Amino acid sequence: MTQDIKLADYLFTRLRQLGVDSMFGVPGDYNLRLLDFVTPASLHWVGNCNELNAAYAADGYGRIKGLSALITTYGVGELSAINGIAGAYAENTPVLHIVGTPPRPLQSARTFMHHTFSDGDYRRFANMSKHVTAAQARLEDAATAPERIDYILRQALIHNRPVYLEFPDDMPDVLVSSANLETKICIPQPPSSVQGDQRLYSAKRPFIFVDGESTGLGIVDQLDTLIKATNWPTWTTVYGKGLVNEQLPNVYGLYAAAFGDKPAQEYFEQADLVLTFGPHNSDTNTYFFTSIPKPAVAITFSGTTVQIENDVYRDLSARNILSNLLENLDPSSLVKATGPPKQEITLSNIQNTDPLAQNNFYRLVNPLFREGDIILTETGTAAHGGRNFKLPAKSRIFGAVTWLSIGFMLPATLGTALAQRDHNKGTGSKSQTILFIGDGSLQMTAQEISVMIREKLNIIIFIINNDGYTIERVIHGRKQVYNDVPFWRHAQALTYFGADEEHAANNTFTARTCGELKDVLADERIQNGSGVRLVEVFMGREDVQGALLYLLNKQLDQEKKAEQQEQI
Amino acid sequence: MTQDIKLADYLFTRLRQLGVDSMFGVPGDYNLRLLDFVTPASLHWVGNCNELNAAYAADGYGRIKGLSALITTYGVGELSAINGIAGAYAENTPVLHIVGTPPRPLQSARTFMHHTFSDGDYRRFANMSKHVTAAQARLEDAATAPERIDYILRQALIHNRPVYLEFPDDMPDVLVSSANLETKICIPQPPSSVQGDQRLYSAKRPFIFVDGESTGLGIVDQLDTLIKATNWPTWTTVYGKGLVNEQLPNVYGLYAAAFGDKPAQEYFEQADLVLTFGPHNSDTNTYFFTSIPKPAVAITFSGTTVQIENDVYRDLSARNILSNLLENLDPSSLVKATGPPKQEITLSNIQNTDPLAQNNFYRLVNPLFREGDIILTETGTAAHGGRNFKLPAKSRIFGAVTWLSIGFMLPATLGTALAQRDHNKGTGSKSQTILFIGDGSLQMTAQEISVMIREKLNIIIFIINNDGYTIERVIHGRKQVYNDVPFWRHAQALTYFGADEEHAANNTFTARTCGELKDVLADERIQNGSGVRLVEVFMGREDVQGALLYLLNKQLDQEKKAEQQEQI
Repeated sequence: MTQDIKLADYLFTRLRQLGVDSMFGVPGDYNLRLLDFVTPASLHWVGNCNELNAAYAADGYGRIKGLSALITTYGVGELSAINGIAGAYAENTPVLHIVGTPPRPLQSARTFMHHTFSDGDYRRFANMSKHVTAAQARLEDAATAPERIDYILRQALIHNRPVYLEFPDDMPDVLVSSANLETKICIPQPPSSVQGDQRLYSAKRPFIFVDGESTGLGIVDQLDTLIKATNWPTWTTVYGKGLVNEQLPNVYGLYAAAFGDKPAQEYFEQADLVLTFGPHNSDTNTYFFTSIPKPAVAITFSGTTVQIENDVYRDLSARNILSNLLENLDPSSLVKATGPPKQEITLSNIQNTDPLAQNNFYRLVNPLFREGDIILTETGTAAHGGRNFKLPAKSRIFGAVTWLSIGFMLPATLGTALAQRDHNKGTGSKSQTILFIGDGSLQMTAQEISVMIREKLNIIIFIINNDGYTIERVIHGRKQVYNDVPFWRHAQALTYFGADEEHAANNTFTARTCGELKDVLADERIQNGSGVRLVEVFMGREDVQGALLYLLNKQLDQEKKAEQQEQI
Repeated sequence: MTQDIKLADYLFTRLRQLGVDSMFGVPGDYNLRLLDFVTPASLHWVGNCNELNAAYAADGYGRIKGLSALITTYGVGELSAINGIAGAYAENTPVLHIVGTPPRPLQSARTFMHHTFSDGDYRRFANMSKHVTAAQARLEDAATAPERIDYILRQALIHNRPVYLEFPDDMPDVLVSSANLETKICIPQPPSSVQGDQRLYSAKRPFIFVDGESTGLGIVDQLDTLIKATNWPTWTTVYGKGLVNEQLPNVYGLYAAAFGDKPAQEYFEQADLVLTFGPHNSDTNTYFFTSIPKPAVAITFSGTTVQIENDVYRDLSARNILSNLLENLDPSSLVKATGPPKQEITLSNIQNTDPLAQNNFYRLVNPLFREGDIILTETGTAAHGGRNFKLPAKSRIFGAVTWLSIGFMLPATLGTALAQRDHNKGTGSKSQTILFIGDGSLQMTAQEISVMIREKLNIIIFIINNDGYTIERVIHGRKQVYNDVPFWRHAQALTYFGADEEHAANNTFTARTCGELKDVLADERIQNGSGVRLVEVFMGREDVQGALLYLLNKQLDQEKKAEQQEQI
C-alpha cells in the first residue's frame, strides 16, 4: 500500500534512487523551504559561493555519477547558473536544475515581486532555459507533480543533458502520492538490429576510436571488453580521453591528426575500418575536423543512430548492438592488427636546473597519478598539456572539449572530488583529484577553493602561473593589455580561503625549475597528504606546445610580414 | 566631406560621444580583434575577473554615467554575464552588451565551433538575450552596420535599459561610412501638454515623492529645483534615495510606511496631493506595496505617461512637463506645507564598549560621508542599514531595489568608482566610493577586489561579517546549515588580491566594538587615504533591524508555536 508523501521528499527520494548523494546550489528566498528537505533526505548539501560555481560543480559531479542536481533561486540565481547549464548541454552532462520559484499565489496574481522585472511576467526565465536544457517542467499541483518529476528526470537520462524544473516556494510540503516511487525510473531502449558486422572480419587495418559521448551511450564498460577482445589499435579524441584504459598495450591515447605522431597519423589515414563510438564533432575536439574518420571506412555509433559509410540507421541502441556483437565475437577470425610503435614518456633529457616549461612539466608530473584518479585540465595550456598524459587504469580526465568556459574546471574539481569521495567510501581506495589550471582561469571562480576546504576534500591544485591569458595571447594580441590579468599572491589562497593555518603553511608549494618541481612531487604531503594542497608553478607568458605553438607561430609570422612591409 | 572608417572605430567613437570612457569585459577568442580597437579609441579597458563581475561593474558605471559598455565573447562569455544584464533591465541601467561572435563565414556554414552546441545553431544565445534586453542588433555587413549601431544605442537611451549587439570577429576592420558620426545620437521627446496643475495650488497637505526611475526620465536636476521652489515635504523610495539633496530642510529621506517614523506615515497617509516621480513598484521598493501613494491623491510621472488619479495620459515627456511647470510656477500661491519634525541622527547613547551592531554601526559611520560620495549598500543587512543614512549633497547611494542579486555591489563599486574618477578629474573633488557588504554576498564576486587594486581606485570596503546569509536566516531557516558560508580570513584579502604589501598592512582594519570602529573611522588612512581600504566589522548572526526584524520575529513566533504544539 502506498501512502502520501511531501512533494520535496518525493523529488529527493527519486534523486537518491538515481545515485545522487550530494546537491549543489545557493540559498535564496524562493528556495529556502525546499532546502529544509535536503539534509533529512540524506542528501549532502554543498552550499557554493555563487550559482555559476554551483552549476560547474554539479556538472563535474554529474560527469562522474551520471546525474547531478543543482538548486538555485528564481531569476538572479538561475540566470547566474545558466552558462554552467549551457556547458552541461554542450558536453552532455545530465544535471537537474531545480529553481525555487515564487509561491503560486504571487505568480497567479502577477505580483511585482523582487527577482522579477516588476511586470508580472513569471515565464521569462523559464523561457530562457528552454534554449539550454533538453526538457523543462513546472510543478503546479499535487495531482500532476510526481509524474512531471519522473518525466523530467527521465529526459535528463535519455538525453544525457541538463533539464529544468520549477519548484514553487509554497509546494515543498504539498502531499502527493508516493505510488510511483516503487518503480525505478528507467530509460527506454530501442530494439537493435543492424547488419554490417561482416566488415569486422574482413578488415585488414582496423582501429577503434572512442569519443566522449560514449558515456551517454552507456557503453564504456563494453568498449573495454571490445578493446581487449580485438586487441586492435585504439585511440581517443580529446573528449574520449580517460574513457579507455591507456595501460593496455593496444591503447594509444589521444589521436591528434597532424599535431601528433606521424606514425599514428599514417595508420589512421590508411585504415580500412574505423569503429567510432560517441562522436562529438566540434572544431576543438577534432583538431579542426581533421581527426574525424572518413565515412567510407567508418562505422559510427552515436545517440540512437548507427552510420555505416553514408547510410544512417535510426532508432537503434549502441548498447544492445554491442551486446550482440560481443556475445558472438570470434576473436580468432579477426585480423591481428599491429599499430605503430607506442611513444613512451621519457624524463631522461630533463635537467634539474631547467626552468619549468610546457614541454617538461606534464611529463614530470605524470608519475604522480594513481589508479582511479580524477584529473582535470582547464581550458588553456593546461588542457593542451594534459592531452599527452599517460593515464593509469580507471582514471578519468577532463579537458577542453567544446564549451571551453574558462573558470569551469575549479568548481568542477569540487564536484568530481565529492563524487569520488562517495565512490571511494569503504573501498580503501586512495585515489585523488588533481586540477591543473592557469592563473587567468583561476581568477574566474577561485572562491570555490573555500568550499573544497570546508568539505575537507583531498585535492591537489597545480596553478600554472604564466602571467595572464596565455591561450588568448597565442590566438591574438600577444602583447595586448587585454590579455593581462590582475596580480594575485596565489601562495596565500589557502589561508585566505579558510584553511587551518598550519595546514596551509605546510601544503602550499611553488616551483620554478624542474628540480624544484621534483622535490615538491616527492614530498610526502603531495604523495600521501590530505586536504587541499596547492602547487604554484611558473612558466613563460608565451610558452605553449602542440596546436597552440602553431597558432603562436602564425601570429609571429604575421608580425614579421607587417614589419617587413613597413620597411618597404 | 565624410570618409570611411573601420567599423570598430565607428562603434567606439559613438560610445565616446555618449560619454563612455571606460569599458568592461573579458577577452575571448571571438572578441580579441575588436578589443584591439579599445585603447586606440581612448577608451580605458577594464579587464574583469569574470563576465558576471564585468556586467555588474558596467551596471554600476552606467548608473552614474548614463550609459556603459560591456564586451564578452560568444556563448560562454555572454551567458556568464546574462544575470548582470537582467539586473540592469530590472533596475533601468542602459548597458550596451557587445558580444564578439564567430566570423560570418563560420556562422553561415553552420560550422560546429567551440562555444556552441555543435549543432550549427548560431541564434540560440541571441534569442536568450531577447528576454533581458530592450533591443537587439546584429552586425552583418558594411552597408547596414552604422545604422544598426545608432539604432541600438538610441534604444538603450530611450528605454534606459540594456541592449544587445552581435559583433562578428571578422568585422572590426570592415570599412563603413562615417557620415552619421557628424550627428549626435539623441532621444526623441514627445511633445507635452497635460492639464491638472491647478491641483498644485489647491493642495493643503502636499508632498513630493521621488522614486528611482526618475534618472531615466532625465528629471533629477528639475526635481531639485521643484523641491527647493515649493519647499514641500519630500520623501524618496529605496530606489529614489540619493537622487535628492537630503541636506535640504524639507527632504526627509526614505519613506518606510509602517516600518519607519509614525509622524511621517501620518503625514503621508493624510496627504491630499502626492507628486510621484519615476515609480518602480516592486515589493522590495515599496515595503510590500504599502508605500505606494493612493491614486486618488497622486499625480504620477513615469516613462512616457502621466497618471492623474485613475486617468493615464500617454506619450508625454515628464521632462517637458516639468520644464513648463517650473517656468510658470508661482511659489507664493502654494501652500506653505510643514512636514513632521525631522529625526536627527544621535550618537549620544552609544558607548565605546558596546559591541558593534546593526543599530549603532550605520549611525557611527555616517559622518564619514562627504559631498559627492558614492555609497553602495549590498542586498542584505547592509542595504537595510543604509536606508537610514543621512546623505551629504551630491552623493549617490545604491541599495536593494528589485533585482537583489547578491554579489552585485562589489563589482558595481568598481564600476562606480571608475565613473567617479572620470568625473572628479580636474575638479579637485576628493569624493570617495564606499561599499557596505555582508560576508555572504562578498564571497560571490570577491575576486573583483583585485581589479579595484590594479585600477588604483580609492574605495573603502566595509565587510559586515555576521557569519553567513543573515538576511536569509531571518526569512527562513534561522539555524539551517544552508545559510552558512565558508570561513574566510577577510583581513588577508588585500594581500591575496595583489595590493602592495605595505599598503595592505596599513589599510586593513577590524572592529568589534563601537570604540574600535570610532578609532578606525578617525584614522587618517580612512579619512584621507587612498587606494582600496578594507574594514571588517563583526556583528551577530541574527542581528537585524527594521523590516528584517519583523521577519525574524515572525519566524521566532512560529518556532514558539511549534514548540508549544509539541508540548501539547
